Amino acid sequence: MHHNLPLDCPIRIVSLKVTDVRFPTSEGSHGSDAIHPDPDYSAAYVELTTSEAGLKGCGSAFTLGRGTEVIAKNIESLKHYVEDKKLESIVNNFRNFYHALVNDGQMRWLGPEKGVLHMACSAILNAIWDLWAKVAGKPVWKLLSDMRPQQLVDLIDFTYISDYLTPDEALQILAEDGKENDREGYLNANGYPAYTTSAGWLGYSEQTIREGFDKFKVKVGQNLESDRARLRLLRELCGPQGVLMTDANQRWSVPEAVAWMRQLAEFQPYWIEEPTSPDDMLGHRAVRDALQPLGVRVATGEMCQNKVLFKQFFQAAALDVCQIDACRLASVNEVLPVLLMAAKAGVPVCPHAGGLGLCEYVQHYIMFDYIRVSRSLQDRMCEYSSHLHEHFVHPVRMKNGAYLPPEASAM
Amino acid sequence: MHHNLPLDCPIRIVSLKVTDVRFPTSEGSHGSDAIHPDPDYSAAYVELTTSEAGLKGCGSAFTLGRGTEVIAKNIESLKHYVEDKKLESIVNNFRNFYHALVNDGQMRWLGPEKGVLHMACSAILNAIWDLWAKVAGKPVWKLLSDMRPQQLVDLIDFTYISDYLTPDEALQILAEDGKENDREGYLNANGYPAYTTSAGWLGYSEQTIREGFDKFKVKVGQNLESDRARLRLLRELCGPQGVLMTDANQRWSVPEAVAWMRQLAEFQPYWIEEPTSPDDMLGHRAVRDALQPLGVRVATGEMCQNKVLFKQFFQAAALDVCQIDACRLASVNEVLPVLLMAAKAGVPVCPHAGGLGLCEYVQHYIMFDYIRVSRSLQDRMCEYSSHLHEHFVHPVRMKNGAYLPPEASAM
Repeated sequence: MHHNLPLDCPIRIVSLKVTDVRFPTSEGSHGSDAIHPDPDYSAAYVELTTSEAGLKGCGSAFTLGRGTEVIAKNIESLKHYVEDKKLESIVNNFRNFYHALVNDGQMRWLGPEKGVLHMACSAILNAIWDLWAKVAGKPVWKLLSDMRPQQLVDLIDFTYISDYLTPDEALQILAEDGKENDREGYLNANGYPAYTTSAGWLGYSEQTIREGFDKFKVKVGQNLESDRARLRLLRELCGPQGVLMTDANQRWSVPEAVAWMRQLAEFQPYWIEEPTSPDDMLGHRAVRDALQPLGVRVATGEMCQNKVLFKQFFQAAALDVCQIDACRLASVNEVLPVLLMAAKAGVPVCPHAGGLGLCEYVQHYIMFDYIRVSRSLQDRMCEYSSHLHEHFVHPVRMKNGAYLPPEASAM
Repeated sequence: MHHNLPLDCPIRIVSLKVTDVRFPTSEGSHGSDAIHPDPDYSAAYVELTTSEAGLKGCGSAFTLGRGTEVIAKNIESLKHYVEDKKLESIVNNFRNFYHALVNDGQMRWLGPEKGVLHMACSAILNAIWDLWAKVAGKPVWKLLSDMRPQQLVDLIDFTYISDYLTPDEALQILAEDGKENDREGYLNANGYPAYTTSAGWLGYSEQTIREGFDKFKVKVGQNLESDRARLRLLRELCGPQGVLMTDANQRWSVPEAVAWMRQLAEFQPYWIEEPTSPDDMLGHRAVRDALQPLGVRVATGEMCQNKVLFKQFFQAAALDVCQIDACRLASVNEVLPVLLMAAKAGVPVCPHAGGLGLCEYVQHYIMFDYIRVSRSLQDRMCEYSSHLHEHFVHPVRMKNGAYLPPEASAM
């Protein structure tokens, strides 16, 4: 028998409340790209009230506006999984709780583990993690970083991934090396490297991109000539050593992706992100094979539906950079095995962020990944955008283009 | 410019109404399996009223009970795509209409083209097809079978599949050979071969399976010894020439699937259906590689989310039998390219059916596939189960274990 972090009191989840939160970001073309011309950054926002007055667990699933009401409806349909349940009974059997929630015998027909249903599960699970962290008195990254390897492995549902990652392999990767405090100290002093997307959205004027960080990402795929003009400008700004990323947001077929990127390769893009359908693992592998001789990496993951699809991307060496999304994968319980599979594959994790609350979420994962999983900053950087942080009680803290370790729980 | 079937009058869709229809099938263990112990066969049911009194288009997305309300909510959120639109403007630009619907710029974040959102699109599109068929005065299979190759190709959104199937290749497969009427006549006389699942559900007693067709499918994966006992009994009933299929409903990891089926191979199962996660294309390929020497085929598809995933199954030769689902794929517009890709790959399509209305749907696809796409009955048979047909105005008509061509539109 193992014991997770002791809970000071037997906290019971009393009720689940879900709110449809929307911001009219499309009015300023924030987040615009070739496929999503007018996103309104939004979220289905979950609050778990508890038997302790004032103690709440909060979680969200990020959306682009329309459809938030559908995720909210799905969350309502799942509330019996948490209402009137003890927090301790959930987190001390988290693997089983997770499996039961994402595999409801009737509802999994709507998935399984993908789309609306999975995002609804993610919001609920994110709220449970927030609650657990608050009770433990630590931010989520620290709660995780302080766990023993077996405790971390017990959080993982290995269903459908054990042919690539066994519990024993996970234990080996997570084995403590005694240097955790050094890495924590490094992060407190220097932060975790970030790059900014705010400069590159298609709806922005070229003037806007003359501000920001030293690593840039630019949206491409709408018009080849304007892509070339924008990349030429950014390469001039960055200099030959600057890091310049490109993002097609699924705009292309596989042959189009290869042909288009051959026309942009002279500007030395560090990676092309989402060159084609997020479901097309073989397509990404074909693009990667074609672009590797040109020095252009393939990055994807913000719309990669679950750990089963990520597993195949790793098995087939179909990506160079893994971009987890904190509200599409179903919380810590699913991000953890993806981080471990990425470590086994030797693929750096550079999380997707921006939107509404995604920076606030992924900062926990990058800290934990550095302290306990990859233990490396090589080829790693986390996305950042400057929008909507003012709506959070504990917004991200940036220093010299780096994320500082968060001091409070997730939301 | 091409012209689709002429419409007699400019019919306008006035309103979309969605109903949450549920049947308590779990009370009799109908449809029970290793992963879905208590399904209540249900559907999100769409009715499109029109400017012509009494003319309605009806479509549905099949579900297992809980979650139907979520699909219904998503359908409501999409109704503006059809309300106050002319039928002619939709069907004469069906490729573009389809692409816009399944790629709503904000809502596609919940997919894209998978899960709740895609099933909601499927119900709406199924209703449009029903309406078109009624206006044309033909059942859907006949409406399709009478189209010219270019008309059929114009229905297809080739986004993300053109690296495997080009419009020209589709035209070649669909080219008329002048023998369509022979095959139609054959179907009218003999029907399309079927097999029954009603015998094999795990909740049934062994007595129940002594009734039914000459091809059986049995659910496996809960207990090896009872699987062996059941298969032994069925093999005795069928004789050595009988066709005996097995279905694991995603019960296993990849190594488990291989090990378990090695223990069942002596009973010569024709196929193992859904050995593992429906998302795990590489996993299916590994199972197929292991079982091919034992003569056991790999079948999957009822939970294969979209044409992009099917494409990869074909590209990697990861399945022997393609089991499309009429309400998970987004109607004719998506089933059509899957039929064509299967034909290119030389993979027989044996649709998933049963549930609520799935037999009524897939009968149109098997007739069309035989008349215009595969033109073969070799290794082909369509699933059938005997439940809930009494709730349809035009239930399926069976003759000697075969589907007769339906005489009316889809629903």
